[in-house]
Amino acid sequence: MGIFYHQLLQRYIYIRTHSAERSHIKIKGTKFKILTHQSPSLIPQINSLRHHLSSNHLIAMHTTVVNYRYKRSASRLTVGAHLFGILAIILMLVWLLHYRGGIDYDSDNSDRVFNVHPFLMFFGFIFFAGEAMMAYKTVMSEHQGQKYMHALLHLIALCTGIFGICAAFRYHDMRQIDDMYTLHSWIGLGTFILYGLQWLVGAAAFLFPGGTAESRLRLIPWHMSMGRTILYLSICAALTGLMQKFTFLGLSKALGDRESHLINFTALAILLFGIFVDLSVALARYV
Amino acid sequence: MGIFYHQLLQRYIYIRTHSAERSHIKIKGTKFKILTHQSPSLIPQINSLRHHLSSNHLIAMHTTVVNYRYKRSASRLTVGAHLFGILAIILMLVWLLHYRGGIDYDSDNSDRVFNVHPFLMFFGFIFFAGEAMMAYKTVMSEHQGQKYMHALLHLIALCTGIFGICAAFRYHDMRQIDDMYTLHSWIGLGTFILYGLQWLVGAAAFLFPGGTAESRLRLIPWHMSMGRTILYLSICAALTGLMQKFTFLGLSKALGDRESHLINFTALAILLFGIFVDLSVALARYV
Repeated sequence: MGIFYHQLLQRYIYIRTHSAERSHIKIKGTKFKILTHQSPSLIPQINSLRHHLSSNHLIAMHTTVVNYRYKRSASRLTVGAHLFGILAIILMLVWLLHYRGGIDYDSDNSDRVFNVHPFLMFFGFIFFAGEAMMAYKTVMSEHQGQKYMHALLHLIALCTGIFGICAAFRYHDMRQIDDMYTLHSWIGLGTFILYGLQWLVGAAAFLFPGGTAESRLRLIPWHMSMGRTILYLSICAALTGLMQKFTFLGLSKALGDRESHLINFTALAILLFGIFVDLSVALARYV
Repeated sequence: MGIFYHQLLQRYIYIRTHSAERSHIKIKGTKFKILTHQSPSLIPQINSLRHHLSSNHLIAMHTTVVNYRYKRSASRLTVGAHLFGILAIILMLVWLLHYRGGIDYDSDNSDRVFNVHPFLMFFGFIFFAGEAMMAYKTVMSEHQGQKYMHALLHLIALCTGIFGICAAFRYHDMRQIDDMYTLHSWIGLGTFILYGLQWLVGAAAFLFPGGTAESRLRLIPWHMSMGRTILYLSICAALTGLMQKFTFLGLSKALGDRESHLINFTALAILLFGIFVDLSVALARYV
């Protein structure tokens, strides 16, 4: 009972004003929509808790107003995340297709095999993982639907990520280069293992068979914090990877000014994508 | 009133059980200490709000139990952050003093001038900024004291950071190298400008003269989210910087295996410091 009541106040805002139930309130001249409970299936439970909330109307109302402001800010940040994500994909495709000879896993040309790696690690792994993190805001559905989409998008990211890592190992094989001796490879593989563990723990606790309400409540802060940490770890992996490729290419043949700028701007776009996903999710805590 | 009441519930946990005020409660066989209000100056205000809290005892109690668990986990993470921070400083000092000829801002040897840059950017900037972020947990004082220490440590980080950046420009001058053309320089200067802005906004809103209670309440989530974002940005700047130096050194003379491992492990220690500071602060939200 205590647990459910707590969750309810955190996630669903219920308003009971002095006057009556209204759809809008005015504070300091600004009109705000009152956000009521979001999930229809919870209405009976909320109704049964009404009498508990009667002394809470000030809190509840204030929370709603603040939340509504964050919701708007957070939505703009989500739009920003999408723009930088798409920009990063475009820049990377221009780089790989125009300057680096294309993307082909089954090619005999080892460079084209290698190009699968940065493409899948960003578009397959980081981009989909970011979308999964934002799914609670971008997927128009009830909480349950958002949750399944969150898990599904992360699963796609996990699978394409594995494929992308295989491409790097296949390239090393073809060129007879040692595996796992650079900073990028350590950060990258470490991140990916953490990501896999996070997915397994998340699926076990929140999907099937699912933990108890208390264990879920205790796990959620860890799940969210670790998720954001892993996002930044993957951004670090991407930046170190791009810098490393830059170095190796620079050693084998001089890079043109255009190509080096392209690589740097791709890295910046990936970094900005990560920042916007992070802020969008961080502020969503207050939605 | 509404605002203060809200803040109170977020930050100070007040327990009123059915039976009486107790110092411990037992849930599922485990004994938990009840954390009461943390700031003595708030006791009169809490007392005057007692009657509002009477219907909230279930929530409050549950919150306390959950909080207490996070408090312990978060403290362990803080210890981890300190260990990795100190490890990173030691590794960096071994690298700069033993392999790179020492640290001296006024030297005629440009390499010794340069070495001021990585040392101050990590030990002066990132390490102190991390300590400032964790000050709310490591400084044994009332909230007000922790807040001033938070601002002071960030100010120290800001000043040594400026000094560290100057060292890089002085090195460029001595060697007649172009400024600001690498990915590291863009990320680094961008991060530092954001950091300065964050400090100014934070000082204006929370220190002198300080905003209204409502504006503070609205700013706190932004301040915290941006703070964590800037932390990761500075970690990205450090990693790209170390990789860039690695490349430049590798181009001018072959690096030994020992030195390249040392640079990579320094980078890993800095990354782990950032992760532990982040998680320690993230979970402190639930303390």
